Amino acid sequence: MAHRVFNFSAGPATLPLPVLETIQNEMLDYHGEGMSLIEMSHRSKTFDALVVETEALVRELMGFSDDYQTLFLQGGATAQFAAVPLNLSRDGKTAEYINSGSWATKAIKEAEKLGKPYRVIASSEDDNHTYIPTDFVVGKDAAYLHITSNNTIFGTQWQEYPDTGDIPLVADMSSDFYCRRFDPNKFGLIYAGAQKNAGPSGVTIVVIRKDLLERSPKDIPTILNYKIFAEKNSLYNTPNTFGVYVVNLVMKWIKDQGGIDAVEKVNRQKAQLLYEVLDSSDFYRPHARKDSRSIMNVTWRLPSEELEKKFVAEATENELVGLKGHRSVGGIRASIYNAMPLEGVQRLVEFMKDFEKRNG
Amino acid sequence: MAHRVFNFSAGPATLPLPVLETIQNEMLDYHGEGMSLIEMSHRSKTFDALVVETEALVRELMGFSDDYQTLFLQGGATAQFAAVPLNLSRDGKTAEYINSGSWATKAIKEAEKLGKPYRVIASSEDDNHTYIPTDFVVGKDAAYLHITSNNTIFGTQWQEYPDTGDIPLVADMSSDFYCRRFDPNKFGLIYAGAQKNAGPSGVTIVVIRKDLLERSPKDIPTILNYKIFAEKNSLYNTPNTFGVYVVNLVMKWIKDQGGIDAVEKVNRQKAQLLYEVLDSSDFYRPHARKDSRSIMNVTWRLPSEELEKKFVAEATENELVGLKGHRSVGGIRASIYNAMPLEGVQRLVEFMKDFEKRNG
Repeated sequence: MAHRVFNFSAGPATLPLPVLETIQNEMLDYHGEGMSLIEMSHRSKTFDALVVETEALVRELMGFSDDYQTLFLQGGATAQFAAVPLNLSRDGKTAEYINSGSWATKAIKEAEKLGKPYRVIASSEDDNHTYIPTDFVVGKDAAYLHITSNNTIFGTQWQEYPDTGDIPLVADMSSDFYCRRFDPNKFGLIYAGAQKNAGPSGVTIVVIRKDLLERSPKDIPTILNYKIFAEKNSLYNTPNTFGVYVVNLVMKWIKDQGGIDAVEKVNRQKAQLLYEVLDSSDFYRPHARKDSRSIMNVTWRLPSEELEKKFVAEATENELVGLKGHRSVGGIRASIYNAMPLEGVQRLVEFMKDFEKRNG
Repeated sequence: MAHRVFNFSAGPATLPLPVLETIQNEMLDYHGEGMSLIEMSHRSKTFDALVVETEALVRELMGFSDDYQTLFLQGGATAQFAAVPLNLSRDGKTAEYINSGSWATKAIKEAEKLGKPYRVIASSEDDNHTYIPTDFVVGKDAAYLHITSNNTIFGTQWQEYPDTGDIPLVADMSSDFYCRRFDPNKFGLIYAGAQKNAGPSGVTIVVIRKDLLERSPKDIPTILNYKIFAEKNSLYNTPNTFGVYVVNLVMKWIKDQGGIDAVEKVNRQKAQLLYEVLDSSDFYRPHARKDSRSIMNVTWRLPSEELEKKFVAEATENELVGLKGHRSVGGIRASIYNAMPLEGVQRLVEFMKDFEKRNG
């Protein structure tokens, strides 16, 4: 048995053990072809079939209709911060953004840098992003509305997605991709760097409503052009073949768990275990407001930075790793993505209770 | 023992077996940390050390001076086709390109699409790119000169790089990266999608002379901005961590072989074996002109398309796979990158002789 810790890292993050074991088993010889998947031409029948299957699997798992297409791109959310305004802007229209944290801020700054008209219609900056803004009106003529579904750093998450009518709703779901059921057909486009909830880093999943592909202008960098990649089913150039392969395995793993609903159930159990400890203690102080809490990233402070350091160090000794919070919030962050087993959170909760007893 | 064929695919391509075995061994537990490298935060000390080591290793192996920096980016050569004109263009100056094949053409079209002034100063289009153009004069005031070091599709390769004096020489080395010794300090920038000679797809190696970083304008997409990525030592956002890891292993494998010179020696042996068969036969007809032959991709035709199909089918039965030529040239292409063992080429040559005997 390999030595394995519980890895609460915010991303790249823990992956399902059966997925890693499959990668390991197939590393020298993929499905009897005498070569590794990563040595295989992206133009081979085998890899083409893998892309076609994964494209459909991503849509099917959440129930996207045939009006949508999955793309496998590169460059993470950072590339999408540019691709969204470059592809979806429309003459005379203004894009709208909601600023719920650091990543939303980066998306906004990128639209600004590229000279695309935009407006921030709501922000939680006034309270260090402890909540998701819900008090806003989407312009009737907006090019699109961009939201960040989950805020990894602050531990907040949209509880219900806004209704935007005819305005395309665009969501960065990098840190809560497929962690819970949602109505996919409300969205114009969702995107996610795979490295938190769907695979390794270096592959970005984009699901786009096909009619929006007509917006892509011809004079933007090819690598950021949705239409060109959609026409070639993500194979305009060589994709991250390893990334697509692992996303395929992770999607199948979700299916094996019983699908999105089954995974969501465990995710809610894990989050509840942690929030119960936070709420029943004066020692631990949750960062996110109750009405905006994330089931993916749970953030809290301790009475002093010294105790926080001690907490992280002792947790690490107990093989509970990656718990140091982001500097914007400080304290502790437990990232409990789909692949974090319930047992890992149970172990963390025990440790927290014990640590409080000894230091509270 | 795993079942392994000889894989002559143009890319993604065969990797050194010891590299694949290391990936396999470390898949569940990287260096005793209790997690896979692909589950590890890119902000961890371990991954940071890996990037620092790999950045230096790439420079050291070829002898780049400290005036250069290695970057690990995403998006393959397609992203670089845009990044080069976006970052290196200068007001009032024209970029110069040499068109030696399909990839060069794509690089040129991208500069055109992005509205950057450019001029094609030489082309081999007149003879279906059977040769590398050598008859050209670089403008004294060019923004840069862009060349494609090796033409995967046509099987041609620059034998000697041009001297461009003060004009930055930019080379797409995707298909012959580190296959032979060259003077690195002649270049302004080299780039290579890793998937042919340096690793898996999804990671692009860029080595840039640091003074050129000052050219990057502020208003281009962040994901394509050399300066921003250089300042953060490739960690502005989450890189393809698996890709960097495998590039690290491949660079160490080159070192273990005895370095670039040792690898080049075997590459020349492999190429010679193949060209000897082609030159001593009327049955096999090499595509590339003798003065422009590639030691990475060897291309040839047979007397009929029927025989070419038969050749590929019978070779595959003999576990010599990926030999079908690109549709622009037709016939056969043997990609014999660094990781293709001499034995693979010996087996191919035997097969070719036997096939000719039976069908010639």
